[in-house]
Amino acid sequence: MQFALLPLAMVTSLRLTAAEIARAIAGRVEGDAAVIITGLAPIDQARPGDLTFVAQPRYFSYIDKTPAAAVLVEQNYSTTPANGVVLIRVANPYFAFLQIAKNFFQPPASWTGVHPTAIVGENVRLGENVVIGPHVIIEPECAIGDNASIGALCYIGRGAQLGHRVVLFPQVHVAYGVHLGNDVIVQAGSVIGSDGFGYVKHEGAYHKIPHIGAVVLEDGVEIGANCTIDRGTFGETRIRRGTKLDNLVHLAHNVEVGEHTVIAAQTGVSGSTKIGNRVTIAGQVGFVGHIEIGDDATFGAQAGVTKSIPAGITVSGYPAREHSLARKEEAARRRLPELLKRVRALEKALAQIAPEALEKIDDSEV
Amino acid sequence: MQFALLPLAMVTSLRLTAAEIARAIAGRVEGDAAVIITGLAPIDQARPGDLTFVAQPRYFSYIDKTPAAAVLVEQNYSTTPANGVVLIRVANPYFAFLQIAKNFFQPPASWTGVHPTAIVGENVRLGENVVIGPHVIIEPECAIGDNASIGALCYIGRGAQLGHRVVLFPQVHVAYGVHLGNDVIVQAGSVIGSDGFGYVKHEGAYHKIPHIGAVVLEDGVEIGANCTIDRGTFGETRIRRGTKLDNLVHLAHNVEVGEHTVIAAQTGVSGSTKIGNRVTIAGQVGFVGHIEIGDDATFGAQAGVTKSIPAGITVSGYPAREHSLARKEEAARRRLPELLKRVRALEKALAQIAPEALEKIDDSEV
Amino acid sequence: MQFALLPLAMVTSLRLTAAEIARAIAGRVEGDAAVIITGLAPIDQARPGDLTFVAQPRYFSYIDKTPAAAVLVEQNYSTTPANGVVLIRVANPYFAFLQIAKNFFQPPASWTGVHPTAIVGENVRLGENVVIGPHVIIEPECAIGDNASIGALCYIGRGAQLGHRVVLFPQVHVAYGVHLGNDVIVQAGSVIGSDGFGYVKHEGAYHKIPHIGAVVLEDGVEIGANCTIDRGTFGETRIRRGTKLDNLVHLAHNVEVGEHTVIAAQTGVSGSTKIGNRVTIAGQVGFVGHIEIGDDATFGAQAGVTKSIPAGITVSGYPAREHSLARKEEAARRRLPELLKRVRALEKALAQIAPEALEKIDDSEV
Repeated sequence: MQFALLPLAMVTSLRLTAAEIARAIAGRVEGDAAVIITGLAPIDQARPGDLTFVAQPRYFSYIDKTPAAAVLVEQNYSTTPANGVVLIRVANPYFAFLQIAKNFFQPPASWTGVHPTAIVGENVRLGENVVIGPHVIIEPECAIGDNASIGALCYIGRGAQLGHRVVLFPQVHVAYGVHLGNDVIVQAGSVIGSDGFGYVKHEGAYHKIPHIGAVVLEDGVEIGANCTIDRGTFGETRIRRGTKLDNLVHLAHNVEVGEHTVIAAQTGVSGSTKIGNRVTIAGQVGFVGHIEIGDDATFGAQAGVTKSIPAGITVSGYPAREHSLARKEEAARRRLPELLKRVRALEKALAQIAPEALEKIDDSEV
Repeated sequence: MQFALLPLAMVTSLRLTAAEIARAIAGRVEGDAAVIITGLAPIDQARPGDLTFVAQPRYFSYIDKTPAAAVLVEQNYSTTPANGVVLIRVANPYFAFLQIAKNFFQPPASWTGVHPTAIVGENVRLGENVVIGPHVIIEPECAIGDNASIGALCYIGRGAQLGHRVVLFPQVHVAYGVHLGNDVIVQAGSVIGSDGFGYVKHEGAYHKIPHIGAVVLEDGVEIGANCTIDRGTFGETRIRRGTKLDNLVHLAHNVEVGEHTVIAAQTGVSGSTKIGNRVTIAGQVGFVGHIEIGDDATFGAQAGVTKSIPAGITVSGYPAREHSLARKEEAARRRLPELLKRVRALEKALAQIAPEALEKIDDSEV
Repeated sequence: MQFALLPLAMVTSLRLTAAEIARAIAGRVEGDAAVIITGLAPIDQARPGDLTFVAQPRYFSYIDKTPAAAVLVEQNYSTTPANGVVLIRVANPYFAFLQIAKNFFQPPASWTGVHPTAIVGENVRLGENVVIGPHVIIEPECAIGDNASIGALCYIGRGAQLGHRVVLFPQVHVAYGVHLGNDVIVQAGSVIGSDGFGYVKHEGAYHKIPHIGAVVLEDGVEIGANCTIDRGTFGETRIRRGTKLDNLVHLAHNVEVGEHTVIAAQTGVSGSTKIGNRVTIAGQVGFVGHIEIGDDATFGAQAGVTKSIPAGITVSGYPAREHSLARKEEAARRRLPELLKRVRALEKALAQIAPEALEKIDDSEV
């Protein structure tokens, strides 16, 4: 048995002509419109059969050398390729490329409708064209919008509400009562609506606080793989529209994240912290609880955020402080071993000139 | 199709009168005992139909203004609310509130007994009233105590032993031979009993050390979502009674955690490290392997713990050191750029008064 | 119902004589060859019925005191045990011990072939002796090599290709088109082939870049529990042969990791970063994107790696710098509060001797 790597096109079984591609993105073919496209790649990695693109002049020189089958270029690209590669002219080559990727290069669904092994509870309302994969469990009282897709082995708790075009990858967990807006995407293994880490200490032992609050992911929110988003204790945990989370991100109970914010992998946000709109958060950042982060703030990787941060500020380090300040301290820190030597030299020099002056102060001050 | 947010009560289908609530917690109603309760909320977030509580005098002023249906107050709360809100007097309003949340506001189970799609192996012993969800796999030779609940899509390996009232949320993984004590709770996606990260290096390649040790979670241990707890290489990984872990926590092989310790999200503990009783660990803390942490120690968020820590100490930072010291260093670090300037000023001053003294030392020392 | 801890042997149902053990590892028994072995343990934890080993002279003294049933020792071990414990002489006691653990102490599989509840799509090619657990989903066009084992509740996307002897623990996610080489092991809950965190910002909103690239895990790669490995955006994410990842590790899109590298738990690698061969990475390390890490580099726990690192270097801290330098800075940092006092003393002394010198400079410089 052979396990040689197959080219991607064999995975997606794609075969399109340049003409068919051009039609889909309102492009104009120059060259053999019948050339077959079987894959996609950036221009520096393209192989025979690939469609590629050039969006910036500094990549123009690649066009003459690429073995690709066709290249997306801007309307006014002027050179005729020496190698005869097919050109497809479009308004925005990069966007056109993404469009093709999205529309033609996703693997086809293997089932339609509700898979016979899925278990759908009582009073579940399904919209039009909902796809529910094998071994899915949907508890009673849920509602799922039109064109939503629930991957294999997902669990959806009682009364959860999923908007139109929601996509759950396989093995996602959506707890009871969670609300996912339209166009929400949740990748494999993520848990939306876990109980928060809330305990009452009583006579030396911790007693679980029942978590009965909500989770709301508004329209267009996207969640990576193996994330955990706790439900509110009594109120709600909310991510506003358009915000994106990378993998292994943790949001604790009652956290609020604003609109169009991005949070990179392995970041954690403690309970009740409020993050603003258009905030940019790099990987492995940690936020303590009960603080507020202003709009448009930026956080360097591994920042440890111990207090509220005003809007527009860029911070880094532990404890997180303004990035320009952190860099200055960092530069100074690098000079610390040298500084110690210089102070020792000063002390010795002073001891020579005026020993009594320094000694007297040493005794009383240090 | 409409996906407006439903109030929580519609998720849990709750409708109780103030009288019914009072009866469950040995309380006494003042006002309309027939008022209907449909939700729970803290006093500053309560809406019509909610039950809320006031446990501290500084919140007394909220009572007159709340739109809630009823408020839990202490026996000796003296004022009559101006807004006519129903009062329910109890010994401890907060505990009564948690009791109501726990008993009435959890969503009802959708099945009882062993779901027909669950696969239960040979010689599995089930206690009384065990609930096993759909698509669960329980391998042979397991034992599961009375009133335990195994969520949908869980996997339980051969010979695992689960105590009474154990609750596994959906999609949990319990590996072969793992022991869970009574009242253990494991949230969705956690893996209990993964193989540890142990390899023998031989001629430049790593060879997996078979992990055949145990994992023991004692009575009352609770584990958050998407955690990973490795089995012992040969001995065991053990968490003692009452200890609670947040989400995405990692415990390596042969780690021991004492009683009534709390570990916040994304913390990692390396192999064979021993953590004491009543230790408090914030989020994203890391412990190297083979160290010992004394009882009642406290760890600030993101601390990097590189050596053993005695009992009762509070540490923070990287490498972790006593918190008061870390703060002092932090304060000094903030003055570093200024300090550099002051030393330069001293050098220049000394160069004016006695250039030969400093230069001589510079040459020989720096 | 009783939930006393069972000894490990009851989990694995093992009963072997010393003679049977010796035969499996080409050893020679000294003492009662019929003694029954029911467990394995290191010499300092061994109990009656256990097989143990001694590989280093400093543990020789344990042999006389162990209650174990038998001890693996080197060929030329000379003493006769006072307690009459059975000796089994072998060339390499530790390797022999691991061999026994691997061959006899793993729990037996509960099923063979394809479990009737597994769903296997069209055109899936299965090698010899493939085991597929219950509730597994394998999408069409996949290929799975000889003696591979797919745990319960796994999801394998369309066109994925798994080599010979691949082991997927239960609840693993292998996305469409992913390639796993021979002898790859993936532990429970890991996601191989999630979409990367790639967005195009357009008029203030983020638009998902379709991820259609590959993931390739070469021969002998092993992945811990609850990891996330993103697929390439258009190219590939690749881990070369023999490399091992611990739990909760995150690799972003288009990351490359070399051969025989080890990455400890909760480490994260950002997009397009290239890590060399034989690199050693401790826990909770973070790498920014688009950097290169040379062969044989070593990273201390929690290091924050912000730039490329040459081959062979050991780094630590944030931002990561050469470890010896980081230690020197660390030592200097500890003396910072004292240094501040010493500089103040110098300033006062100088103010006494030559106040005009320092003051003049203060005004103009600081």
